[in-house]
Amino acid sequence: MKEIKIGLIGFGTVGSGLAEVLMDQQERLARRSSLSIRLARVADINIKELPPRFKDVELTNDAEDLFNDPDIDIVVELIGGIEPAKTFMLKAIAAGKHVVTANKALISQEGWEIFSAAAEKGVEVGFEASVGGGIPVIKALKEGLVANRIASIMGIMNGTANYILTRMTREGAPFAEVLRDAQELGFAEADPTYDIEGIDTAHKLAILITMSYGMKIGLDEITIEGITNIEPIDIQFAREFGYRIKLLAISRNHGDHVEARVHPTMVPESHLLASINGAYNAIHFSGDAVGNVLLYGQGAGKMPTGSAVAADVVDIARNITAGSINRVPALSYLPEEITSRGITPMNELECPYYFRISARDEPGVLAAVSGILSKHDISIESVIQKGRKESGPVSIVMRTHGARENEVRQALDEID
Amino acid sequence: MKEIKIGLIGFGTVGSGLAEVLMDQQERLARRSSLSIRLARVADINIKELPPRFKDVELTNDAEDLFNDPDIDIVVELIGGIEPAKTFMLKAIAAGKHVVTANKALISQEGWEIFSAAAEKGVEVGFEASVGGGIPVIKALKEGLVANRIASIMGIMNGTANYILTRMTREGAPFAEVLRDAQELGFAEADPTYDIEGIDTAHKLAILITMSYGMKIGLDEITIEGITNIEPIDIQFAREFGYRIKLLAISRNHGDHVEARVHPTMVPESHLLASINGAYNAIHFSGDAVGNVLLYGQGAGKMPTGSAVAADVVDIARNITAGSINRVPALSYLPEEITSRGITPMNELECPYYFRISARDEPGVLAAVSGILSKHDISIESVIQKGRKESGPVSIVMRTHGARENEVRQALDEID
Repeated sequence: MKEIKIGLIGFGTVGSGLAEVLMDQQERLARRSSLSIRLARVADINIKELPPRFKDVELTNDAEDLFNDPDIDIVVELIGGIEPAKTFMLKAIAAGKHVVTANKALISQEGWEIFSAAAEKGVEVGFEASVGGGIPVIKALKEGLVANRIASIMGIMNGTANYILTRMTREGAPFAEVLRDAQELGFAEADPTYDIEGIDTAHKLAILITMSYGMKIGLDEITIEGITNIEPIDIQFAREFGYRIKLLAISRNHGDHVEARVHPTMVPESHLLASINGAYNAIHFSGDAVGNVLLYGQGAGKMPTGSAVAADVVDIARNITAGSINRVPALSYLPEEITSRGITPMNELECPYYFRISARDEPGVLAAVSGILSKHDISIESVIQKGRKESGPVSIVMRTHGARENEVRQALDEID
Repeated sequence: MKEIKIGLIGFGTVGSGLAEVLMDQQERLARRSSLSIRLARVADINIKELPPRFKDVELTNDAEDLFNDPDIDIVVELIGGIEPAKTFMLKAIAAGKHVVTANKALISQEGWEIFSAAAEKGVEVGFEASVGGGIPVIKALKEGLVANRIASIMGIMNGTANYILTRMTREGAPFAEVLRDAQELGFAEADPTYDIEGIDTAHKLAILITMSYGMKIGLDEITIEGITNIEPIDIQFAREFGYRIKLLAISRNHGDHVEARVHPTMVPESHLLASINGAYNAIHFSGDAVGNVLLYGQGAGKMPTGSAVAADVVDIARNITAGSINRVPALSYLPEEITSRGITPMNELECPYYFRISARDEPGVLAAVSGILSKHDISIESVIQKGRKESGPVSIVMRTHGARENEVRQALDEID
């Protein structure tokens, strides 16, 4: 039985999760692969010793030790962030190691350099865990749905944001209060910016767009709006219209240009994505042959992410043994087939919009607002005006028919 | 660019779907694999000529022509049923062809003979399309979730049954009427027995059990109950209790024995499986590392099934080119690691039950019924008794706490 040796950089939450998965599943993996996959070395600058069950694993505080060890076949980077993760990945590749990561910021922003270096060296790059945590979504795109033109991607890809929206929906509690609670419970990080501002979701969307359509996309090409401005009253109004508010990543493939955006979205109650609650993720694809497919699971966390990283490790281990390295192109299309394409400007997109306007409760306000909207060619689908509380302002809430972003912005400026 | 030639047996719904997918995606597949995958020959006894777009594909009425053609790399069987499909598969394997099928009856009932023959010949067997139509569930089990002990499987795996239950739920229409309509609309076959009696679902469950737990299971070991006895009143009562009725495949892995059953089940409204409507399928796994995962999509149909068959074809084509045949074991565990294990007898399972009893509206009926149940150690969680219509019988509906099948049967006999 061939032994495949793993070097792991970063023994934090996900790193220790991977170590546990590999240990827990060692016997099962051997029953499934004729392979012995062994965690040989861990590099971490913050810990002095590994837990007792990893007594046979060598600990170092210098990642170089992994690159210099000729016995290590695969280096797994689980420290996150751009640097020094990127340097470590490039050094591991230069040393002829296959690499695996869960790092969506790195793959979406600096992926090209890593994939080029790996292609030159003839080594593999695994990144299943970078999107959707434990959900095998990268594998599905590369292989299971290979015989499809992907027409659209829609997903709830950030567990923290979805957890917050779910609790706001269930409890009617304000954003800041739920966020604080989520931080105490470990569902949100001390600095939650990437999660609540939609940036983490955009990283993941960029990866899926490249793999689904075979095109390059920069983070700056994605329109991003987070959930920090959502108030309980919006969620309540959405419900009255028959919708749930979700932070969605949305992309449509128009051939020569594609839509790419992340923003709070009103999802009809009857759509499966409206039923995805708590810290779960779900990614919905539409393919020309397969139709609608949705993959659901835990989008983060120690063991689910460990499961996805381990799947990459096994995949590469199988290719090492079978002599079939890069049997499937890392980005699902051959590198020379990945093209540049335009992004549909938001101004050219017609979407239904949801507004909430706080106005003085005076006669003629609704007439004035609808007059401005109609001047901008925005037609109203439904309106709710809520009874005022004593002398405060009233909330006027509207859903429009399809309208263009620039017209909507101009109309809102005028209403202001 | 290497050319991989496909021979297809059966140009019916799924067969023509595969042909279309391969033709539609030829260019895209080349961009993703450096491979040219070409449908070279079709064997079908019912057609005289192929549609014009397949003018370069040879048609024969004798499957032997495919086995005897040394240029054909992969034979795809899409005629369904046990014979002659089984003989064709075995002959193709004997001729050294890799084989792909969507045939769940064949794989679940006669799979061992096929897998043994293929192992001996060193060829691959693809059967992604046998479970969940276009959903890449087999791939997920073999690879994406490889580093997990699967603890349970729950799924809606028959689109016809789910379509009927969905319409009964929405319209309150009786089973027979919806079935007739489904047949007219093409959602149910002329002979719907396998679909509505749960047999097709059991075939698929057997395949998933083997792949998830690494064990053999016979169809006769699965407890099967279909949906033919469900009346609109049951669906209405289920709603009142907060449930939807779904035909579920259910399996739990207890280590030395496993549960395996197919029956109508009351699914809590808040569970994702309760939201799977129409002809869609969804399969839910629970893994020790990944937690809960659900895969959703079209469980049948020409193009979705074609998509899954094509994924197998590409997978095998990649292995042919890379020289990595049987890189992943066909049944996810190495053949020698697939064990026999016991099935948990239904009598030993404690489940909550739902009864509906038609009784004369006389004083003491409810007391008598509850007396019998309590004698059999069955405790009642909730009861609804519906107001009678004039002089007819009343319906008493109960949900029990956990109870054993044998006690339930005895109590029902006594109540009768």
